[in-house]
Amino acid sequence: MPRVFSGIQPTGDPHIGNYFGAMKNYVRLGEEYGKNSIYCVVDLHAPTNPNAYDPRQLAARTLEMAVANMAAGLDPEKVIFFAQSHVPEHTELAWLFTVITPVGELERMTQYKDKAQKLESTPAGLLMYPVLQAADILLYKADTVPVGEDQVQHIELTREIARKFNHQFGEMFPEPRAVLAKDALRIPGVDGQGKMSKSKGNTIGILEPLDSIWQKLRPAPTDPARVRRTDPGDPDKCLIGDYHKLFSDLPTIETVYEGCRTAGIGCVDCKKMLMVGITRELTPIQERAAELRADPVRVRDVLAQGAKEARQIAAPVMEEAREKVGFLKL
Amino acid sequence: MPRVFSGIQPTGDPHIGNYFGAMKNYVRLGEEYGKNSIYCVVDLHAPTNPNAYDPRQLAARTLEMAVANMAAGLDPEKVIFFAQSHVPEHTELAWLFTVITPVGELERMTQYKDKAQKLESTPAGLLMYPVLQAADILLYKADTVPVGEDQVQHIELTREIARKFNHQFGEMFPEPRAVLAKDALRIPGVDGQGKMSKSKGNTIGILEPLDSIWQKLRPAPTDPARVRRTDPGDPDKCLIGDYHKLFSDLPTIETVYEGCRTAGIGCVDCKKMLMVGITRELTPIQERAAELRADPVRVRDVLAQGAKEARQIAAPVMEEAREKVGFLKL
Repeated sequence: MPRVFSGIQPTGDPHIGNYFGAMKNYVRLGEEYGKNSIYCVVDLHAPTNPNAYDPRQLAARTLEMAVANMAAGLDPEKVIFFAQSHVPEHTELAWLFTVITPVGELERMTQYKDKAQKLESTPAGLLMYPVLQAADILLYKADTVPVGEDQVQHIELTREIARKFNHQFGEMFPEPRAVLAKDALRIPGVDGQGKMSKSKGNTIGILEPLDSIWQKLRPAPTDPARVRRTDPGDPDKCLIGDYHKLFSDLPTIETVYEGCRTAGIGCVDCKKMLMVGITRELTPIQERAAELRADPVRVRDVLAQGAKEARQIAAPVMEEAREKVGFLKL
Repeated sequence: MPRVFSGIQPTGDPHIGNYFGAMKNYVRLGEEYGKNSIYCVVDLHAPTNPNAYDPRQLAARTLEMAVANMAAGLDPEKVIFFAQSHVPEHTELAWLFTVITPVGELERMTQYKDKAQKLESTPAGLLMYPVLQAADILLYKADTVPVGEDQVQHIELTREIARKFNHQFGEMFPEPRAVLAKDALRIPGVDGQGKMSKSKGNTIGILEPLDSIWQKLRPAPTDPARVRRTDPGDPDKCLIGDYHKLFSDLPTIETVYEGCRTAGIGCVDCKKMLMVGITRELTPIQERAAELRADPVRVRDVLAQGAKEARQIAAPVMEEAREKVGFLKL
């Protein structure tokens, strides 16, 4: 059976791009692969980017991403769900991988070059980021990695590291493949300026209060060709039209698309109808999140149990790797 | 009380340069600092240099360095003695340090540049070597690090990493200082071509059979000015003279120095008298080593007990570091 691994950045405040692109996918894969789907809040990666990291917030954000995913339907009874820093084998395997990964390969990573150029001084952690990521995946001998397009190069490197390890020390790791969540990548930001992303400040948070979401949607740009209420619009050129496809039921989508094209409804009406779908989708998630936030001990227990389950897989793999690299076994 | 940390390379075949430069020093410091002297066979570092590493030999060499040090007098009851790969906190702390160590600093390390230039492809592990070394030391909050001159730059970097961590996350680590074993550095190789070193093949092993040592000493160069038996020599310009200072008692040293200067004794006589001292020094070590080799379970038990003692210090330090960097505590 395939084994799925995915890392979840502890950024806090997941948005609907994360939700439709990744979180819903985790839930679906969890139904399919059960304990062979492994989800890890990758808190060890967080400090590698000094521009996006605050030691005083990391723990809270880690907890918040756990809450968000559980609220969105990830069932920790069915899958393995934990935080990276609670499984020390991640850094241990990463060290072994540094030995077989050429510095030059790491310097060529696009993400590294992009992030490094925004920093005055480049931390070694940023260069080593994809080595730890390879360890995250291979520590569970995962072969299937749902990722965004920006991570494909890192998964390629993971495959190379697996190949190289197998070649040098003996067959051990699968060569994992990246699985792209294609639709997810196209979710536009609420400013209409391309992909929704936290750094652009154009997100709709899945745990964001509904009135705050409405304050963002009301002024959101629609089809620029529809200048007056009486002009017909093209819902395929409108981000509200895109959002309807995510949140609304089919009859609503038909109604608003038709209403837009014929100028039968105005944009504010259309946005209000979108809010119905958003409310239906997010209300139960936000209610579950509120319950979980009120019971942080339970969330910690879930992560502790997840770390235990993760280590049950990781420990023997690490043992095997240690032996292959030649360390003295006690 | 100061805490001493030193890493022992699992090179196998320690020579008298290692013995007088480091191993005897460990024994002495162990008498003085007891369980505050921590000695670690740094097997995790070994694979970073592909030219000197063989996965099939690493375990045996780790065991052999443990045997050699114990045979040379290191008392695992008195000190903490273990192998690095048995304490996973080393790589865990190293990861945290990658986050605060600039790539540029690592690229400037002389050892890195020297070793990298001998390799076709430079492994990331070679670049990260001093980061792991900093973790080795600071994981025990050690402040005193007996090292060779070639390691001084790495200890400087360790100080910088400690300072940076303390500054960024709150006071935690001491700034360790390097303590040079000065005399050790001057022990000449048996070929008379400078410092004794394994890579030059000019060593006398402390566990080397005595007749093999004699085969090396007999043809060894002496004072080049002493061409004939009847020429007087200068024992201060002779490596055998240097060795006498390490192995012979004072009356013997006086006798051979005087005999050399007056042409009273020949070089072969002088070398034979050296063999007496070598035999006296190395025989008990070689006997203990033979006993230990015959009982590898005992050596493994010693290392297991050492790893346990090491982790008793390392685990709370790692806990403290994790909390300071902001990871979620379960």
